[in-house]
Amino acid sequence: MPRPKEFNPDDAIEKAMQVFWHKGYEATSMEDLLSAMDLNRGSLYDTFGDKRQLFLKVMDRYCTNFVGLKFSLLNQPGPAIPALRRFIHGMIESSLGDPQRRGCLIANTVMELAPHENEIAGTLRQALKMAEDTFFQVLARAKQQGELMENKDPRALARFLTTMLQGTIVMIKSGASADAVKQTVETALSILDSADMFRPSIERSFDT
Amino acid sequence: MPRPKEFNPDDAIEKAMQVFWHKGYEATSMEDLLSAMDLNRGSLYDTFGDKRQLFLKVMDRYCTNFVGLKFSLLNQPGPAIPALRRFIHGMIESSLGDPQRRGCLIANTVMELAPHENEIAGTLRQALKMAEDTFFQVLARAKQQGELMENKDPRALARFLTTMLQGTIVMIKSGASADAVKQTVETALSILDSADMFRPSIERSFDT
Repeated sequence: MPRPKEFNPDDAIEKAMQVFWHKGYEATSMEDLLSAMDLNRGSLYDTFGDKRQLFLKVMDRYCTNFVGLKFSLLNQPGPAIPALRRFIHGMIESSLGDPQRRGCLIANTVMELAPHENEIAGTLRQALKMAEDTFFQVLARAKQQGELMENKDPRALARFLTTMLQGTIVMIKSGASADAVKQTVETALSILDSADMFRPSIERSFDT
Repeated sequence: MPRPKEFNPDDAIEKAMQVFWHKGYEATSMEDLLSAMDLNRGSLYDTFGDKRQLFLKVMDRYCTNFVGLKFSLLNQPGPAIPALRRFIHGMIESSLGDPQRRGCLIANTVMELAPHENEIAGTLRQALKMAEDTFFQVLARAKQQGELMENKDPRALARFLTTMLQGTIVMIKSGASADAVKQTVETALSILDSADMFRPSIERSFDT
């Protein structure tokens, strides 16, 4: 009877994620992974396959836990724009608060591996699309609830916010100051409501 | 008498840049570099040092030619906002037009190597600061020339545009459609003038 596996595959994937997130894909060696996951080579290959297959599993986990779970918070009923603002501020705060400023595993990997890794790039495209679609739903709801002006396009804004988040992560990784990053996020978010401050005046001028 | 060098160091650095840009830093081997630069190992080490030192020289070249030269076009007199729009559209078009969608060497490297490569991260921070400062100068000029509303902050907008460009490059590398990218850029640029469309109404309402 074969010796039963003595490790928890979930924990092992979590440990592998931390190594890839810190070092990047190429710079992570099998030795790094074996040591972090506390596995011998045979167990790792038997359970997860090679480095590339393990990385795809790590990406799945990251997309479900770090991206999917967080984004699902946005789909609760209630005022949409304040929830969206809180969500984006929370993402930025947690990225700024990481002492290593590792940024987002997805963005890091797009930048490192695309365009010569099609399957990995596909996983990343899917995650970015999921982010965009969730933003779209919140913004469409905001519009229905009268929180967003009629002339705003929820799809265009959803793409804009997804892109902006990626850019913010690049800046955080490059070592930008927390103040500069927060100012930039506020500037970006002003697009959601910038015209609203002029609404009363317009209504007034229509009334005259 | 030693055999004179038969290669042009400028051309060799240009060739090394293409390899790093396509493959990323870690995935580029000395063999890749020797083959692309058409050098033997001795000439490469004598002239450029090791892979890391060569990469720092490549970064310098990229910052001067691809970033510095392009950005210097923004400092010419004349209407500032149209020049800024043309510049940003030009950057995006050229990035979308690259069949390999390699993105920006600077952003790629930030994402791959920061936070564990301080000297390289420093070069990148400098390049991003140069971009931000150039945007700031153009936007300050726009404000002086009455092209930007009084309530707009040129420094905040400069940081916003720098961040936005980085995010756009992540999206381009991830395989986003050209239409989606262009729509996002238009949405972002609307921040420069979004309030202006309401100006006449406000002035009218003040006049009444």
